[in-house]
Amino acid sequence: MTLITDNTEADMRRRILVVAERLFRQIGYQKTTVADIAKVLQMSPANVYRFFDSKKAIHKGVARHLMGEVEQAAENIAAADGPAAKRLRDLLGTIHRMNRERYVGDEKLHEMVAIAMEENWDVCINHMEHILAAIGQVVAQGAATGEFDAPDVPLAAGCTCTAMVRFFHPQMIAQSFDNEGPTLDQMVDFVLAGLRAGRHTASP
Amino acid sequence: MTLITDNTEADMRRRILVVAERLFRQIGYQKTTVADIAKVLQMSPANVYRFFDSKKAIHKGVARHLMGEVEQAAENIAAADGPAAKRLRDLLGTIHRMNRERYVGDEKLHEMVAIAMEENWDVCINHMEHILAAIGQVVAQGAATGEFDAPDVPLAAGCTCTAMVRFFHPQMIAQSFDNEGPTLDQMVDFVLAGLRAGRHTASP
Repeated sequence: MTLITDNTEADMRRRILVVAERLFRQIGYQKTTVADIAKVLQMSPANVYRFFDSKKAIHKGVARHLMGEVEQAAENIAAADGPAAKRLRDLLGTIHRMNRERYVGDEKLHEMVAIAMEENWDVCINHMEHILAAIGQVVAQGAATGEFDAPDVPLAAGCTCTAMVRFFHPQMIAQSFDNEGPTLDQMVDFVLAGLRAGRHTASP
Repeated sequence: MTLITDNTEADMRRRILVVAERLFRQIGYQKTTVADIAKVLQMSPANVYRFFDSKKAIHKGVARHLMGEVEQAAENIAAADGPAAKRLRDLLGTIHRMNRERYVGDEKLHEMVAIAMEENWDVCINHMEHILAAIGQVVAQGAATGEFDAPDVPLAAGCTCTAMVRFFHPQMIAQSFDNEGPTLDQMVDFVLAGLRAGRHTASP
């Protein structure tokens, strides 16, 4: 009976998402059916639908998981000790590398991102808010210690995040395969210069 | 005989591109055939093929024209007088607005961009080089007058251009329809702060 009593709802949802992610990676999101997922789990499609009311809902769960790992890594760096500039470099680089490893050069995972952007845009928005919050946390620490001159922390964090779009956004990473333009470290230098300088100079 | 002698090769190519651009805007690139273009020009498809060996080549010509207008506007601003920071703001804003007007909110022109990126990537690369050169010209002027602290002008121009991807790239403009994040002017402030600050501070 242990097997059956272990099958709590949360546990079943987790198992379905693990299998779905594996199948999406192996055969692609479009080609994977709910029946395929059910078959691996030795259950009926109807049973899968008890936990997720559509394939889209399963996709959303898988996307949340993939993005959640990046958010967790970002939050760990934001919560660590050390100079803000050093941690901001670490943070921006980690987001770039994790997104590149996840979504670029793997056509099947890239398909997942494209579908997330079309069908589950709220998941993407939510992810960007988490990443922005982690960046904001480090910028706020830098502003508090005087490392950064950022009187408007949310604005400075927003500009930092926007400046890094080429290195964060899966589509932009994929399009920059020829590696033209500044390197990640050069771009972070540029952003840090902006954060250190502040914006008191009268703008033309 | 005047009509016929006026039909020099350059003139005919121009006429074909004008008609093609109009049809691409009206009925979309995919649905427009070379026969449609020929019909408007009251000539045979075979005659169109004398000037462009494929529909793809016509697309390339239309894309070059659309992008060329932005390049021309950018080069005019780069060649003008006045403080570098003011002109850089003008330049970055102009590129954003022209790209937004051209490619966003118009599904048919957006289709053209997507196809340019897939099939005529060299046209896109060439366009980006022109835009980068105009930005580099203004950054160099700012560095020469001491407005900017940019010892490595090509690098500073590259970082400026990369920081503005969210406002330049048609796909990124289209995805930012909800206007979250910094405004164009806030982003330009951030970039100008970076250019003024330079990069002599020791990087962590």
